[in-house]
Amino acid sequence: MRLTRYFLPTLKETPAEAQVASHRLMLRAGMVRQASAGIYSWLPLGFKVLENIDRIVREEQDAMGCHQMMMPTIQSADLWRTSGRYDDYGPEMLRITDRHGRDMLYGPTNEEQITEIFAGSVRSYRDLPQMVYHIQWKFRDEVRPRFGVMRGREFLMKDAYSFDMSKDAARRSYNKFFVSYLRTYERLGLKAIPMAADTGPIGGDMSHEFLIVADTGESEIACHKDFMDMSLASTDIDFDGDLQPIVDQFTAKYAATDDKRDASIEAGLGDNLVVARGIEVGHIFNFGTKYSEPMGAKVTGPDGEEIMVEMGSYGIGVSRLVGAVIEAYHDDNGIIWPDAIAPFQVGLINLKVSDADCVKACDDLYAVLNDKGIDTLYDDRDIRAGGKFADMDLIGLPWQLVIGPRGLKNGVVELKNRRSGEREELSLDAALSKLTA
Amino acid sequence: MRLTRYFLPTLKETPAEAQVASHRLMLRAGMVRQASAGIYSWLPLGFKVLENIDRIVREEQDAMGCHQMMMPTIQSADLWRTSGRYDDYGPEMLRITDRHGRDMLYGPTNEEQITEIFAGSVRSYRDLPQMVYHIQWKFRDEVRPRFGVMRGREFLMKDAYSFDMSKDAARRSYNKFFVSYLRTYERLGLKAIPMAADTGPIGGDMSHEFLIVADTGESEIACHKDFMDMSLASTDIDFDGDLQPIVDQFTAKYAATDDKRDASIEAGLGDNLVVARGIEVGHIFNFGTKYSEPMGAKVTGPDGEEIMVEMGSYGIGVSRLVGAVIEAYHDDNGIIWPDAIAPFQVGLINLKVSDADCVKACDDLYAVLNDKGIDTLYDDRDIRAGGKFADMDLIGLPWQLVIGPRGLKNGVVELKNRRSGEREELSLDAALSKLTA
Repeated sequence: MRLTRYFLPTLKETPAEAQVASHRLMLRAGMVRQASAGIYSWLPLGFKVLENIDRIVREEQDAMGCHQMMMPTIQSADLWRTSGRYDDYGPEMLRITDRHGRDMLYGPTNEEQITEIFAGSVRSYRDLPQMVYHIQWKFRDEVRPRFGVMRGREFLMKDAYSFDMSKDAARRSYNKFFVSYLRTYERLGLKAIPMAADTGPIGGDMSHEFLIVADTGESEIACHKDFMDMSLASTDIDFDGDLQPIVDQFTAKYAATDDKRDASIEAGLGDNLVVARGIEVGHIFNFGTKYSEPMGAKVTGPDGEEIMVEMGSYGIGVSRLVGAVIEAYHDDNGIIWPDAIAPFQVGLINLKVSDADCVKACDDLYAVLNDKGIDTLYDDRDIRAGGKFADMDLIGLPWQLVIGPRGLKNGVVELKNRRSGEREELSLDAALSKLTA
Repeated sequence: MRLTRYFLPTLKETPAEAQVASHRLMLRAGMVRQASAGIYSWLPLGFKVLENIDRIVREEQDAMGCHQMMMPTIQSADLWRTSGRYDDYGPEMLRITDRHGRDMLYGPTNEEQITEIFAGSVRSYRDLPQMVYHIQWKFRDEVRPRFGVMRGREFLMKDAYSFDMSKDAARRSYNKFFVSYLRTYERLGLKAIPMAADTGPIGGDMSHEFLIVADTGESEIACHKDFMDMSLASTDIDFDGDLQPIVDQFTAKYAATDDKRDASIEAGLGDNLVVARGIEVGHIFNFGTKYSEPMGAKVTGPDGEEIMVEMGSYGIGVSRLVGAVIEAYHDDNGIIWPDAIAPFQVGLINLKVSDADCVKACDDLYAVLNDKGIDTLYDDRDIRAGGKFADMDLIGLPWQLVIGPRGLKNGVVELKNRRSGEREELSLDAALSKLTA
């Protein structure tokens, strides 16, 4: 992408309203603009990151055998009256009256809606188990939205739902999501730790939150230090196999959110205790028949008996993850994207657009990088070099390839790694082969 | 995808509430379920088609140099008060009050929102032209929603916006979208005819609708018969070049929606007149400074002068297209998907799941098709052959590959083309090479 043709309105000043690093950097990097309190427009650069995260989340849901669908944002209030949650939910639910005076709402989550679909479509135990997900905008009317996209009102969430014939089968579905989430966060370049959680308004008796570790995280967490090096031994997981050993490995040791910390356990851990900052990026629930009972979601079993289905739901905050990743990966100069979700892999900087040799070298390089499928942002603007360097550090692409007239005369270009800050001068060919390795 | 693991609740009966073919078939084929009046959930099969259309629309927008972004669904009423449209829009606008008593609304379109972003970010003529788009859910509170996803209340729309320095430049942007839309509809397998249109609540003085021809279309259209064979000579279009000749080619001859028909012109056309049914699938507008003036979207020109930007907007109804394609492509037995947007390319039918040879042959075939990247729906259910044939015709995949014990003994399988209805018996290898050709 040529920057002269792109819509990337970066800011030099730090917006006063932004209290946390990710919010500041997303505004400054031209990724988002606030539309109303807690509601954001995603500009092209921000949207690319959102899409990259979306894609990884989808690929991992698909890989575990969950099917994507799409439920609407606007739901009928009657649906929520059936489950009893319409009154429970409180002022965070955005309530709407349509032109015919019918009570509607902007869905904060979709347990009722998916249970209704299921109850109207599935009749036999032979159709179980089922797992479906959608990635759709949600609305929670937070009284005090803050931290940019980390605690907005309109946000993009992946929510999945499982339907099973028995508690054991429901536990197997729960384990699939548990392991799939670990894989998802690893692919995003994040260290995520599962922690036992309260179930809140979703309900149920088994629940885990996934928190990522970030210096500027929103809350304190404590865990056994072994979590810091724990990872899935292999990404080649058989989701039809027994996943309990993996779940056990990731739940055996102490890990607690701030409100669940246990001083006596922590005292016993001694040097093995790590206290850090964390950000919640996922939450999974097994809630049995909490929704299937009132909404009549049952199937006929092998002997003709009626079976109330066992359900669970599984959420990942897709838009929230953009902020969370930035909290985990940034420095004073800007964002440092993990490769897997960087909006572009390479930033190509032409230091002198009035120099024909520079332009030709950059245009050629840009063509070669595109041919090789390396998504490149080409800074072909007629501004000072300082502004180009600052913007490129700010938006945080993994590599910067800098072309100037002096270097070209000596046959060299400069390649900078954004994460390490390391710069090296090397030949054009050597730079290319490094980037395309 | 194995059907025993998929969520595909087909219906034998035709739902009474569905008045048009696409609505009936989408319900029967398990593509959608109604959530509330004019609001639909997209089940996995329907979602796949929606995604395929979404992808083609995106690829064509990207190809013409338009950048994807994402604006929120909920907008502030004040934004619409600035443009004067808050009161104009009438009861089709879903009006909402948030917990703090602020007036909000569910966006039916985004001219105000994008103009505000632009006005806050772009300062210089050097940053023009700009073209951005998003694909986001919209809401129009239709008094009488009908025809399923064709005239729903919550619907998915691609809306794009252009910003230019002069009327001439704005016309060039308009032409880009005009030609890009022709390309998009051709890729979707649709015959689309541009027709001069009223601008309605969007405003402006130049506008075209794109209507596709379908026997069961919602309204009558009339046009010169040359449109029936007109197509872009080449899909290799230089969007930076002069597109006026293509626009001229597609606007020179008579074509009119029902409310714009001209009896005297039609009389003069004689045998060259075609009267058909049509469905609107896109609408483009050039509206000059209608929004930039009240919202202060201006840039500084090369001589320091202030320039009010010239704008246009460009919509494609993505969810509506799913219904429109079905109206254009179906028969008494069900849907007939064009290859480009079919949810799967091949339906693999095992006629006897209790026969070990059949199972092995099907499993092997399924693995080979997957390896070759051919998206296959594998009917491995234990039901009668008649039900399998009926479901496969209903959901309309381009090819059906039928494996039965009798054929296997003779070394043959049956391959059916859904569109032509043609069936042939051939060897497994021959069938595979035909499908992977």
